[in-house]
Amino acid sequence: MKPPYSDMSQPSESWQITELSRNLKPSAIRELLNLATRPGMISFAGGLPAPELFPVEELKAAADMVFSTQGRSALQYSVTRGLLPLREAVAERESIGGIKSTHENISITSGAQQGIELMGRLFVNAGDYILTEYPTYVGALQVFNALGARYASVPMDNDGMIVSEAEALIKQFKPKMIYVVSTFQNPTGITMLMSRRNELVALAKKYNLPIIDDSPYDELRFSGEPLPSLKQLGEDSVIGLRTFSKILSPGIRVGWINASDDILKIAERIKQGSDLHTSSLNQLIVLEYLKTGKLFGHIQKICVDYLNKRNAMITRMKECFPAEVSWTEPEGGLFLWLTLPSHLSATTLLEKAIAENVLFVPGKPFYPDGQCDNTFRLNFSNASLSQIHEGIDRLGKAISAFC
Amino acid sequence: MKPPYSDMSQPSESWQITELSRNLKPSAIRELLNLATRPGMISFAGGLPAPELFPVEELKAAADMVFSTQGRSALQYSVTRGLLPLREAVAERESIGGIKSTHENISITSGAQQGIELMGRLFVNAGDYILTEYPTYVGALQVFNALGARYASVPMDNDGMIVSEAEALIKQFKPKMIYVVSTFQNPTGITMLMSRRNELVALAKKYNLPIIDDSPYDELRFSGEPLPSLKQLGEDSVIGLRTFSKILSPGIRVGWINASDDILKIAERIKQGSDLHTSSLNQLIVLEYLKTGKLFGHIQKICVDYLNKRNAMITRMKECFPAEVSWTEPEGGLFLWLTLPSHLSATTLLEKAIAENVLFVPGKPFYPDGQCDNTFRLNFSNASLSQIHEGIDRLGKAISAFC
Repeated sequence: MKPPYSDMSQPSESWQITELSRNLKPSAIRELLNLATRPGMISFAGGLPAPELFPVEELKAAADMVFSTQGRSALQYSVTRGLLPLREAVAERESIGGIKSTHENISITSGAQQGIELMGRLFVNAGDYILTEYPTYVGALQVFNALGARYASVPMDNDGMIVSEAEALIKQFKPKMIYVVSTFQNPTGITMLMSRRNELVALAKKYNLPIIDDSPYDELRFSGEPLPSLKQLGEDSVIGLRTFSKILSPGIRVGWINASDDILKIAERIKQGSDLHTSSLNQLIVLEYLKTGKLFGHIQKICVDYLNKRNAMITRMKECFPAEVSWTEPEGGLFLWLTLPSHLSATTLLEKAIAENVLFVPGKPFYPDGQCDNTFRLNFSNASLSQIHEGIDRLGKAISAFC
Repeated sequence: MKPPYSDMSQPSESWQITELSRNLKPSAIRELLNLATRPGMISFAGGLPAPELFPVEELKAAADMVFSTQGRSALQYSVTRGLLPLREAVAERESIGGIKSTHENISITSGAQQGIELMGRLFVNAGDYILTEYPTYVGALQVFNALGARYASVPMDNDGMIVSEAEALIKQFKPKMIYVVSTFQNPTGITMLMSRRNELVALAKKYNLPIIDDSPYDELRFSGEPLPSLKQLGEDSVIGLRTFSKILSPGIRVGWINASDDILKIAERIKQGSDLHTSSLNQLIVLEYLKTGKLFGHIQKICVDYLNKRNAMITRMKECFPAEVSWTEPEGGLFLWLTLPSHLSATTLLEKAIAENVLFVPGKPFYPDGQCDNTFRLNFSNASLSQIHEGIDRLGKAISAFC
């Protein structure tokens, strides 16, 4: 018998909750997102796309077309793996992007987040280790914690995971899979160096470990040369998780997994229990939008906007922040990663920032062991240029009073 | 070290898949749904609503309104628990239906299917028992099998679970939760008698067990008097899983959990890892449709249609089927449940039915132990009246040649 869950009122007080569920912490970002709606607040906390860039009219037209021509199919149940024409369209995009794929390699998911969970459930038992970057995506830790996973954490520098340190960890902890966000990482914005990509793929092959490459940001490159993805380099050794969230809309919850058919067959059985299938309506809307051929231009528009915002944020940080604060300067994605002098706490800084009406996410929740409290993440995609200017001013004030 | 998964090609051949995933069977219905698209095939297999009844124009208008007035919110990330105005509207409907609720009792899910999984993960560890009806919903077994659950199965008669047999099973197997489809059950169409509802709630309270009442069909009552739901009777002892799938559209994947706030707080943490949130767009479309006040009338229209179809199916069955075949006559829902003489196999009958171009689902997958192969499920909501007439003719031919 496990002890009853402590916060429960009668009669559920006496219900036995599984230990894994009981120990799950509320999301670190949830409360911040509530605070973000406070009048006058400027938020650099969430990883939200710029709402003013959503192609609302185009997606409205796509939805209209779907209702007019395939309304009944859009509203009916559909297959767990995803609608075949969408899987074909996604496979074609992947192939153009350098990852040779057919529809058999594609499974539609309810956002890339679901891809993370499906892969976690496929490969990880409670107590198993996962090899990850340190820090890593907090939403992946949320999934993996719920499965009872443990972490073999590989340190990062400005060129991504220090892969040379990974082999010793693999030998010691025998992880069941490798989870990375190799390009414009969440939270750091850092991209893994080419040589390290090759090294990591070789290591995965040597130890027969799947690499789960969570790649929501790959197409949001503002500058520099694109690198081949891990999936491109490692082919069947790598499972790619992708999504329309950052390049089109997160509210429609349409992502995909790129993997071998045998892996997708098992993932499909788990997904069927999870949600039967991803919304037929939303899959058809995405497909209709893809047919317009506008996505490529839309992504270019996003990249121009985010580059401006990134530059504005960095320029203002240089003017307002004390010299002791350092940060990454990513060539794409949504995030900057900041480091305070090691004796300072970003969690404490957040309290002062909230008093100044500006929000960010402290770094701690991105570390499986909750260390490195002197780091924090800034999102530059969601706020407007004037909010970025004003928000960095406020944050500079909070930091200067604090350093 | 676990043995490598057997069907895998290089290099994933050597990956270690968790035992639970490896043992998951493909859905029994998946292949049937593929067969259902074969030209000339008449399918009574899936639990699909009648597509001709979907309010396509009304939902198109709702979507248009959402894009025109809240396009950016519809396309943006939203909160895991669900949009507050939708939770309020759902709580109001629940209260009108007799379940006193506020938005704090409601969590939006990606279909009721996700509610099953969230509750399974909240209460069930691998090896734990779940008390269920025998037979029970195959999609719930899919979830629970993936969690490594075992089953304490309570026999049913035409008045639902024989609750008097449940207590001994609770004492013997110490289940962690009770999962039932108390009204117009999937697969049998049977509704639990009033006295048994009270008995089951009392039992759940006595043993401090949560009842998960999966209730997608409650509002589809064609005849007879409505019974109070388990949730209405048991209040906080019962967790209700509901959905818009059967009363509006399954393709939009919007359902909800009705439970105490403390349970929903934990469920929210698990759901956040699973898919972050249910599509903002689809939640807003449902909300907009609810505002028109048309749902009540729409449900009445569905009930009239399904009653006609049920009657047509039963009338034709009486004409075509041998006397040895018996069936349930449900007052609502989507399904009839048929029983062949005990020496006959519905799995074998299905082969003959396929040859006649008609489909149903054999009963075996609905039994955790895979027994009772002389039973099968017929869906009457999806096919047209003329297809029902012709399909039952064909099935009668197959059965007669077989009995």
